[in-house]
Order: sequence, then structure tokens, then C-alpha cells
Amino acid sequence: MPGLSAADTIRILVATDNHVGFAEKDAIRGDDSWNSFHEVMCLAKREDVDMVLLAGDLFHDNKPSRKSMFNVMRSLRMNCYGEKPCELELLSDSSEIFQGAFDHVNYEDPDINVAIPVFSIHGNHDDPSGEGHLAALDLLQAAGLVNYYGRTPESDNIQIKPVLIQKGITKLALYGMSNVRDERLFRTFRDGKVKFFQPGTQKEDWFNLMSVHQNHHAYTEKGYLPENFLPDFLDLVVWGHEHECLIEPTHNPETNFSVMQPGSSVATSLMPGEAVPKHVAVLSITGREYSVQPLRLKTVRPFIMREIVLADEPKAARLAKKANNRTELTRFLEGLVHE
Amino acid sequence: MPGLSAADTIRILVATDNHVGFAEKDAIRGDDSWNSFHEVMCLAKREDVDMVLLAGDLFHDNKPSRKSMFNVMRSLRMNCYGEKPCELELLSDSSEIFQGAFDHVNYEDPDINVAIPVFSIHGNHDDPSGEGHLAALDLLQAAGLVNYYGRTPESDNIQIKPVLIQKGITKLALYGMSNVRDERLFRTFRDGKVKFFQPGTQKEDWFNLMSVHQNHHAYTEKGYLPENFLPDFLDLVVWGHEHECLIEPTHNPETNFSVMQPGSSVATSLMPGEAVPKHVAVLSITGREYSVQPLRLKTVRPFIMREIVLADEPKAARLAKKANNRTELTRFLEGLVHE
Ligand SMILES: [Mn+2]
Ligand SMILES: [Mn+2]
Ligand SMILES: [Mn+2]
Ligand SMILES: [Mn+2]
Repeated sequence: MPGLSAADTIRILVATDNHVGFAEKDAIRGDDSWNSFHEVMCLAKREDVDMVLLAGDLFHDNKPSRKSMFNVMRSLRMNCYGEKPCELELLSDSSEIFQGAFDHVNYEDPDINVAIPVFSIHGNHDDPSGEGHLAALDLLQAAGLVNYYGRTPESDNIQIKPVLIQKGITKLALYGMSNVRDERLFRTFRDGKVKFFQPGTQKEDWFNLMSVHQNHHAYTEKGYLPENFLPDFLDLVVWGHEHECLIEPTHNPETNFSVMQPGSSVATSLMPGEAVPKHVAVLSITGREYSVQPLRLKTVRPFIMREIVLADEPKAARLAKKANNRTELTRFLEGLVHE
Repeated sequence: MPGLSAADTIRILVATDNHVGFAEKDAIRGDDSWNSFHEVMCLAKREDVDMVLLAGDLFHDNKPSRKSMFNVMRSLRMNCYGEKPCELELLSDSSEIFQGAFDHVNYEDPDINVAIPVFSIHGNHDDPSGEGHLAALDLLQAAGLVNYYGRTPESDNIQIKPVLIQKGITKLALYGMSNVRDERLFRTFRDGKVKFFQPGTQKEDWFNLMSVHQNHHAYTEKGYLPENFLPDFLDLVVWGHEHECLIEPTHNPETNFSVMQPGSSVATSLMPGEAVPKHVAVLSITGREYSVQPLRLKTVRPFIMREIVLADEPKAARLAKKANNRTELTRFLEGLVHE
């Protein structure tokens, strides 16, 4: 867009599924999850973005260990607080969007200097639970460290109101829908009980960004969120929950929006999708145009996957035909892992 | 002290043993503990004190429920953060005193406006534990909400360095010793392994205040902290752990310091000491003089204790002599409780 400058560009560090606390008792991988979350937050600071968008499963456990909570608070305070004023102007009525003890956006709090606000929905791992129906994100919000938005207090009746943000000429409508069990959400959509609110005037001026945390693929008939359930007026959807990193947006010709799936910042399962290099991205929005700059995470433990066909392996062809080969086979495979 | 004004007076709200989370699942008393903690923090704001001093057992459970943590964070942020600059000047090397992720006092953090800093030691209920040896107070400190001082990482070798604070002409040396199992602490003192550090120069200028969280009375031979184990140079000791409110300082002629026992802000056991009205206090220090203004807590559920001698009760004298009187006796006593 000619004539538009940095003052008109909203730069967002997009990441998701940090699963802080995953394998925290593992002697080798114990620190991986918070190290990678810390890397993400340090990148936000280094890249000097305007905000961070997380799409759920910040924590692996619904009740994070003290060490997990401590490490997350530390990374957030070290990287989000700062002297630099946040240049985003909030246009929506924040009390409608941020519930909880402090129902305003943290960077407008007169008593905290927030340079880089973090916005997050909850995932299926860190959803509200127990007495008071609080999520781990509620603690972070009470402390002033995070803006927990896109709450879904009623699974059967969902109202989605955007956070309206302006910087220069760029107007961002940020939608979010925290995780709801997939089958329930499917039904709620089907029953017409998911309502999206749009800015009152000049709808065409807004860039419409949404984050969700649901199954992306039809694992079962109704156990996922079909992309075409989401409204066509969206420009870009950040999809959490799926751990494979597909950071480059994929255009959906039917809905005419694109979908970006950042994937997790730590491998939590032995699946091919988790072996794809992990990235986060800086999303730059100017007017109604956007671009994506992927950033590869350096702290992520490489996860290599290989299929072994014993009959094709010179050193193992003999093993393939042998009965009771368990001990020898284990030794052979261990050798491959340590190669 | 003639000629000395408010600008020379350090005013401290002193409270302890808030036991947030106590009986939180009780249908009737469930909210009591955080309501009283909130009252304490609101009093600090209303009285416009310079700081709050807590002497341990802020939380009842070592791993507080999410609701407890949320309520404490909320009360702290609502009452401690604010525009008014804290007038206390910190003279000690804070990195020696405040360990943890952010080793400075919260009111000197350039990114948080702390009007009323809270200083706390840990008690036996909320001591560090588990992976990383973190206490609930470490989370509050990481968030910037509390200054956790007087740590006792080694029970057998305790170094006590004061927080040195100045306001006008008043110089306060604030000592703290977080809870250590009483028998161990007795041994550590006996072995000469508790070392107190004093300000380098002009020791006589300082008002020496200390908080401890130990048994106050000789329940067993070595299961308590004798007052005379503490150094004579102290002026006033705030004693946590004992739940009976004895807010007026008691002078110890042997050591020549006084001891103030604020007691808990919620009754946690059925003992006569818990039936004494609960108070906190504003401690005002000017030069080396101090005064104490008790404030009665209004939210505390009244706890009334009475001894019943059946033979002396006109309506129960008959019951006293009867065998198998359990059902009738229960009914009689229930009647008294509801009177
Ligand atoms: Mn996930
Ligand atoms: Mn998930
Ligand atoms: Mn106690
Ligand atoms: Mn105690």
C-alpha cells in the first residue's frame, strides 16, 4: 500500500499451544516447554511487535504446577512490561470483552506499563474449571500480565464480540472463540446459536482476524469445526489446537479467508506433524492487507521421525525373519536412534 | 518527638495469618478467609499507610486453590497499586534480600506503580515446596504484587539481612525470618548458626523491627522460639503463627524489646484464643519511637466460646445424671448455639 508507513502497521507475534508444563518431570525434556515459551516472548520483544496473539493451550495442565506458572509469569513480565508505550488504540467497550476482576485491557491500566500486550483465548488444556470457574489465564489476567478474551461461558449460546483496535489508518477487529468441546460446538453452530458481532459502521474498513482452538480436520463426522462454519467476512483465522506447524496461510476459496496454523512450540506426541520444524510468525497488517514473516524457534528439541522396514535394512534383514527377535530388535533400533 | 512530622513517620499496616483458602469449601464460611484478607488490604489503602507487613500463613494451603490465589491477587492489585508514589527510600542492596526472578523491591520497578508495598515472610502453611522449591509468595513476587523477604533457604544456617528503609529522618531496619520447623530452629540458634546483620554505621539511629513465624510458647521443651534467642538490639517483634490476637505490644524486660502478636484474621481452630476479637494495627514509627493503633476487623465471623456445666444449667441438671443422654444432650446444646 503506497504511502502507508510503520505508523499504520499493526505487527502481531502469533504463536499457540505452548503447553507450558508438558513433560516437566522428565529429566531430559523437563525445561523444554517453558524454554520455548520464553523464546517466543523474547522474540516478541526483539521484534518489537505491537502485540502477541496466543490461540490456546498456553498451559499443558489445567492446574499448572507452581514452576510452570512461575516461569510463564516471569517471561511475560520480563518481555511485555516496558517503558515503550503501546501504540494500539482500543475502540471497543472493554468491559464487554474482558471479564474478570480487572475488565480493561492491561495496556490501558494506569498502574502497569505494558509495552506489548498479550491476547489469549483458552484451549482445551487450560479451560476454566472448578470453584469459581476460573482458568489459569484468569490468574495471569488478575496479575495484569495477559488479556484473556474470547471467553465462551455458555457452550450452547456463544456471542463473539471483537476487540476493536486502531493504529494509524489500520483498524483491526480481533475475534476469538475459546475452546468448546467439538461436538457441542458443532451443534451450537448448527442450531444458529453462535452470534458474531461486527463493528457498527464502515464494516469494510476493518481487518477481521479470528483465533479459534478446535479440531481442524474431520476426525469424526461432527467432532471438528468446519472452516465454512466461520463467517465469510473474516480475513484471516489463526487456528490453535493442531500441533503441526503450517505457518503459511492457506486460502480457502469457498469462504475467501485464509487460515494460519502456527502449531505447538513443543512436541507433545509422537506424530509426523510434530516433526515439522516449529515456527511462530510476525503478522503485519496495514489497512486490509497483511503479510506473514515466519520465525523458526531455536530452542525446540529436534524431533526426527523415520519409518524402518526391517527387510530393507542391510543390517536387519536377518532379524525380520527371526522369531523372538525382541531383544535384538530393540538393540538395533536403539542404535539407529543414537546415530 | 517534637518537630517531627508525617514526613518523618513510617506507617505500617501489620497483619498476619490470613489463611486465605481456609474452609473455602464450607457452604457458610467459604468466603470468610478472602473477605477478611480483602478487608485488611482495603484498610491499608484507607489508612494510606506506607507499607504492609505480613508475618506468614497468608495462604492456608501450601498449594492454594485457583480461587484463593485469584482473590489474593485481586485484593493486592486493587489496593497496593496506585498513582501515589511510595515515599520509602530503600537503602539496602535489594538483590541480597529479594531473591527470585525479580530481585528488586516492587515499588522501585519502573513498570509498576506500587503505592503501598507489601512485605511478607512465609509461614509453615505457605512455605516453599516441590520442584524449584517455590512458595506461593514466589508467584506473587513474580507478578510484582508482593516483596517476599526473610527467606530461610537453609534451616541449619540462617543469615538475616535487614531491608533498610528511610523516610525523612526515620530509618527502619526490617528483619524477617520465614518459618523453620521449631525444633530445627531451636538447634540452629543453639549452635550459633543464626547470624544477624546490622547496618554498617550508626547502629543507634535505626529502628529495628523483626517478623517471625514460630511457636511463641514452650509447647514442648525445644519446640518453640524463646524470645531471648532474638537479639537485644531489636525494638519490636511482630510474631506470626499464634492465632490469638494480642495486638498491644508486650515489653520483655529481659531482652528489652516488645512483642506484638496480631493473630489470624480468620478463626481456624476451636480454641479460646480464636474467640478474642480480631485486630490488625497501624504501627507508626518516628525516629526510634513508635505507637500502635489497633483496628478491629469487621468481616470476621464472631466466634463465641462458652463452657457449659450441665449440673449448673437449670434446664439440663436432669440430663447430667441420665445415662444414654446423647440425643437429648445434642438437642439441648444445639438450642444454646442458636440462642
Ligand atoms: Mn494443544
Ligand atoms: Mn488443544
Ligand atoms: Mn497460622
Ligand atoms: Mn503458622
